[in-house]
Amino acid sequence: MEVIRSVKDMQHISNRLKKEGKSIGFVPTMGYLHEGHLSLVRRARNENDVVVVSIFVNPIQFGPEEDYARYPRDEKRDLSLLEGLADFVFIPDVKDMYEEGFVTYVDVEKITTHLCGAFRPGHFRGVATVVLKLFNIVKPDRAYFGKKDYQQFRVIERMCRDLNLEVEIVPCETVREKNGLAMSSRNVYLSKEEFEDAGIIYKALSYGKSLIEGGERDSKSVISKIENMIREKPTLKKIDYIAIVDPMTLEDVKTIKGPVVILFAGYFGTARLIDNVEVML
Amino acid sequence: MEVIRSVKDMQHISNRLKKEGKSIGFVPTMGYLHEGHLSLVRRARNENDVVVVSIFVNPIQFGPEEDYARYPRDEKRDLSLLEGLADFVFIPDVKDMYEEGFVTYVDVEKITTHLCGAFRPGHFRGVATVVLKLFNIVKPDRAYFGKKDYQQFRVIERMCRDLNLEVEIVPCETVREKNGLAMSSRNVYLSKEEFEDAGIIYKALSYGKSLIEGGERDSKSVISKIENMIREKPTLKKIDYIAIVDPMTLEDVKTIKGPVVILFAGYFGTARLIDNVEVML
Repeated sequence: MEVIRSVKDMQHISNRLKKEGKSIGFVPTMGYLHEGHLSLVRRARNENDVVVVSIFVNPIQFGPEEDYARYPRDEKRDLSLLEGLADFVFIPDVKDMYEEGFVTYVDVEKITTHLCGAFRPGHFRGVATVVLKLFNIVKPDRAYFGKKDYQQFRVIERMCRDLNLEVEIVPCETVREKNGLAMSSRNVYLSKEEFEDAGIIYKALSYGKSLIEGGERDSKSVISKIENMIREKPTLKKIDYIAIVDPMTLEDVKTIKGPVVILFAGYFGTARLIDNVEVML
Repeated sequence: MEVIRSVKDMQHISNRLKKEGKSIGFVPTMGYLHEGHLSLVRRARNENDVVVVSIFVNPIQFGPEEDYARYPRDEKRDLSLLEGLADFVFIPDVKDMYEEGFVTYVDVEKITTHLCGAFRPGHFRGVATVVLKLFNIVKPDRAYFGKKDYQQFRVIERMCRDLNLEVEIVPCETVREKNGLAMSSRNVYLSKEEFEDAGIIYKALSYGKSLIEGGERDSKSVISKIENMIREKPTLKKIDYIAIVDPMTLEDVKTIKGPVVILFAGYFGTARLIDNVEVML
């Protein structure tokens, strides 16, 4: 396993691999790896000749009031977890990724206006921009994204289609703690009690799913039942949204007639947590 | 010479060429080719194994009041001019380039706010987006742009650097009519008298250059002398701007201390014409 710290070096390696006809599987991360990330890396390992993992806490996807500075980092631990799984770990410097005079951004419109896009202005612009840059540097055949970040996955998928990128975007199942909480680097912010309480998110979303599968067609009613369950937890601080949306457009669905996604975003303590479940109808 | 009309076909061809280790030279155009375009194609021919020319009048770079509908088109003539020069002519359909649900745009900030960017809101967003798409489809090693569109050249150059594209942007000298008028597909809009009058643009910009080379350091004075020359022509309808700017940032220079570019944009009759001269100090 080789650690690459410069954009130019990474590009040279990708170019060489492509010339040799190797397929490249890519897992972009912000580090502080957990089993969710590792499941993506294992899948990339199975499906490609070479696996590249990037670790980069991307400043331009954080709002000024958000947790960029305190976002958890532990490079040594990350590298030991990736040993034997990844071929290359790309850990660029912020100054190398955003050189003096950087002014170019990718805007994916419409599907970024709802949900997290509404609560984190500029977030998906930052995500799309850095992912496009990473794709241009790493040149993957396939890139692996966890479905926990469902809107992010759809934004990247849309960007690739619109910009004629030939990267296959592979969505992967959310990996969960024993109590159902979706794994996230931000779970480290949770106290023991908050962690236990946050288990309700997945339980409530799953309950919503079962209501729909049982015949309920009114989103408002499903959302209100999910909300009631989650609000019972004392360490819940704030709900940003609970929504039932079309899986492709991410627009709100009022009367459920086909597949939908039920999404949650909110705070337990100071940790902003997101999760979702897909409902196939 | 092969004419390719589908994005997928063009991508297959580019991928095959890259696998074969061929270098690709690319000249993106909006068609209605003139000697300016052909000089780019000839240079691409000299410097690459394979030459791809695209012809695509890009709707998203035209404002609602602009000349998208009447922009001159003559595919048959274009193809006969390219015969023996290009290997592939890529002529995609608008619906293939902008599929249903297209929502992704590239914004190059700062250097697009001045000059033509100020007079044509959204223009450079449309240019950057289509050029990025074309680069992803054609996968060129080198792409050729005329310096007549100086701001466009700088925007594309900046975009490539910021997004880590490995396309070499090759700026090429403006090709001119006998009276000095920069060649442009839009010159077809000019009456005989307007065409003759528009010859003053280059003469006036060159006069400005000679003033600076002769020691003049005050941009305001140079601009005013250029403006006086151009305003003498009866078919001049409107000046959008005459500016003296830094070649990299495109910001106005008040006191000339190093290399600058003198730019003009304005209307003769209904034709919006642009031109510029570089001054090396």
